[in-house]
Amino acid sequence: MKPINVGLLGIGTVGGGTYTVLTRNEAEITRRAGRPIRITKVADKNLALAKEVTGGQVALTDDAFSVVTDPEIDIVVELIGGYGIAKELVLKAIENGKHVVTANKALLAVHGTEIFAAAQKKGVMVAFEAAVAGGIPIIKAVREGLAANRIQWIAGIINGTTNFILSEMRDKGLPFDTVLKEAQRLGYAEADPTFDIEGVDAAHKITILSAIAFGIPVQFDKAHVEGISKLEAEDIKYAEQLGYRIKLLGITKRRANGIELRVHPTLIPARRLIANVEGAMNAVLVQGDAVGSTLYYGKGAGAEPTASAVIADLVDVTRMHTADPENRVPHLAFQPDAMADTPILPLAEVETAYYLRLRVEDKAGVLADVTRILADAGISIDALLQREPGEGEAQTDIIILTHVCQEKQADAAIARIEALPVVKRKVIRLRLEELDK
Amino acid sequence: MKPINVGLLGIGTVGGGTYTVLTRNEAEITRRAGRPIRITKVADKNLALAKEVTGGQVALTDDAFSVVTDPEIDIVVELIGGYGIAKELVLKAIENGKHVVTANKALLAVHGTEIFAAAQKKGVMVAFEAAVAGGIPIIKAVREGLAANRIQWIAGIINGTTNFILSEMRDKGLPFDTVLKEAQRLGYAEADPTFDIEGVDAAHKITILSAIAFGIPVQFDKAHVEGISKLEAEDIKYAEQLGYRIKLLGITKRRANGIELRVHPTLIPARRLIANVEGAMNAVLVQGDAVGSTLYYGKGAGAEPTASAVIADLVDVTRMHTADPENRVPHLAFQPDAMADTPILPLAEVETAYYLRLRVEDKAGVLADVTRILADAGISIDALLQREPGEGEAQTDIIILTHVCQEKQADAAIARIEALPVVKRKVIRLRLEELDK
Repeated sequence: MKPINVGLLGIGTVGGGTYTVLTRNEAEITRRAGRPIRITKVADKNLALAKEVTGGQVALTDDAFSVVTDPEIDIVVELIGGYGIAKELVLKAIENGKHVVTANKALLAVHGTEIFAAAQKKGVMVAFEAAVAGGIPIIKAVREGLAANRIQWIAGIINGTTNFILSEMRDKGLPFDTVLKEAQRLGYAEADPTFDIEGVDAAHKITILSAIAFGIPVQFDKAHVEGISKLEAEDIKYAEQLGYRIKLLGITKRRANGIELRVHPTLIPARRLIANVEGAMNAVLVQGDAVGSTLYYGKGAGAEPTASAVIADLVDVTRMHTADPENRVPHLAFQPDAMADTPILPLAEVETAYYLRLRVEDKAGVLADVTRILADAGISIDALLQREPGEGEAQTDIIILTHVCQEKQADAAIARIEALPVVKRKVIRLRLEELDK
Repeated sequence: MKPINVGLLGIGTVGGGTYTVLTRNEAEITRRAGRPIRITKVADKNLALAKEVTGGQVALTDDAFSVVTDPEIDIVVELIGGYGIAKELVLKAIENGKHVVTANKALLAVHGTEIFAAAQKKGVMVAFEAAVAGGIPIIKAVREGLAANRIQWIAGIINGTTNFILSEMRDKGLPFDTVLKEAQRLGYAEADPTFDIEGVDAAHKITILSAIAFGIPVQFDKAHVEGISKLEAEDIKYAEQLGYRIKLLGITKRRANGIELRVHPTLIPARRLIANVEGAMNAVLVQGDAVGSTLYYGKGAGAEPTASAVIADLVDVTRMHTADPENRVPHLAFQPDAMADTPILPLAEVETAYYLRLRVEDKAGVLADVTRILADAGISIDALLQREPGEGEAQTDIIILTHVCQEKQADAAIARIEALPVVKRKVIRLRLEELDK
């Protein structure tokens, strides 16, 4: 059968990996796809690099627009990233009737609605397995593998940088700043690590997962985004003592009146499989009404793991591109005319359990005051830990784990606790998820 | 769009679950599939049960052949099991141009070649996600999600009964027979548990995974099959002391000169995620050259988890049934004309590490004799544990972990060790896999 011609935009880490794997495994991939899939044109500003990676075997250009308009190209792979030129190129490719494969979570989380509508109108596919959790085929699992289910929630470790940092903080008892520098030295964190450590990257990914799980549009602007840069080593230690690990989770959950969409450091029981995902690895836990819990684990980044997802999409698109558009798997798992307008809930209405750390004066009656405030707010206590103050120390820590309540209940109670004269600093509040049903 | 009519053969546990989930989630599934998928005819010998489950909402019959020949039926779901009548019905359905969805691993592992050839010839699909690891979408992951990779190996906990038994033996230090009875009482093991405990069920499943991983025909008759019924509680304890857990693994591995295909109790490092899969849960670890290790975890059996997989296949087939057969995902992941004839290696040529337990007389020189035999056979020792004999005890245990060698090397060395007069019973030999690369 006729080969499929692929135009590659960007030959950096993932682009290079895609070229390498597609070349190395050409025979194996052709045996699966039924026809050769070949990168025939590469666009990159760094032509020298492009030449080095491809060995000059394919057409090279520094003009990406010449790829997306090339009539010989069947599928465009966009690996430039960001919202700017990448968006223009993707839309131009669609306009020219090209199918698009992209790893660009930022673009899809923010401009997905516009992009998928354009693709739908033109009858082309936009595939994005590589946008979430690197090499783990999580998009396919949720969109197709679990199609029988009403998905109830998804909780994922979907940013390797922060998981590496949290693993190191716990292992070595070191503060965030020290570990971040180490992660940068080892190449696990970028020079400007903001997107990773502040949870933005994870929020892009959970926004996409939320859309395909519940059949709602991508709505990054409604996500609650909280990173790990303010996390203190003490809280990791206290959590450990109480049988929990702290992970940066992306969480999306179906509730009666809407959908939760949030990223924040989260205490999870240490005995859960996902709590034992260490270093830069990713894992996604999906709860469906029929299947129960399923977990997907693997490398969430890196040249070849991400290339694995890009190429899986290329094979899928190659198989499906002659099929009737209405019989293809819908971009966001649900048919475009069957999307729901279920609202994303504001943070105040999120329901979760809490870890609270209070710095208090070590004197009688403090605990009575605090527990009274929680009781008045209708918040029940699941566990309580009071640190024995050291010799001559006038202050100590009280750690409280609550049962599930609404965020606004917690807000109100915390405000009242902080107003107590015996409470000496702002309450440390982390969220806690049992992940058991 | 026109609804898809499904004929269901067998309304036992999984059939009942399929009916229930398809009915309960009809709206959600239709939003995904783009058209309703409805069970319109059910065949079961137990008509009373069929009526109870379906509430009399669909046509019922005790003649399954009337379903597979019914011109109104688009897809036949075969949930009868076994090689007998199920095979006839599946072939008859194919002959009548029906697509088939089945959970029947035994049928596919043994007669898959004949069935897939018939389906190929007739241009219909045979989908079997539910045949391996219940609700975990592992077939889809390997066949499509990892299509970029040269798969190197797959190792899976793919039988819940045996994993439950092994978890209980370890937790409670109980012998196999006691735990088996408990498992039968709890419904985790059948009255005749042979297929599960002797590894046959796991071998059916790993045979199917091997075919889709390497593009070879299903060859159940070439698999090495060894169950857990002879496993002794002591070995679980010794393994634990050495930092390992014992799991019944289905393993298939690509080697330079062939493919390994085997099921046996296996020591794996306790720190691996898969070593911590407990109770009746399933997990499959897949190693690809690009993606590295990925793990898939969930419920491997039960009415609704298995129904989840059956219905995912129904949605897939619904989407693909108007597509050109040559552009569909091939049954065994590779195009039928691109299957490989790579041989399955005989057990003697398998390469693995070993756990050996020797019951020996407690006297000088024993260790020297044993280690000399291993050295002569070219087998190096990774770890050694000698139990301190109890007061007045004349015999003791020596446990040896070897590095990787060939099974036939191990056979030869074990025969020589057993011939030593100081060795008092047959050597206990278990295989050990690091699962790290």
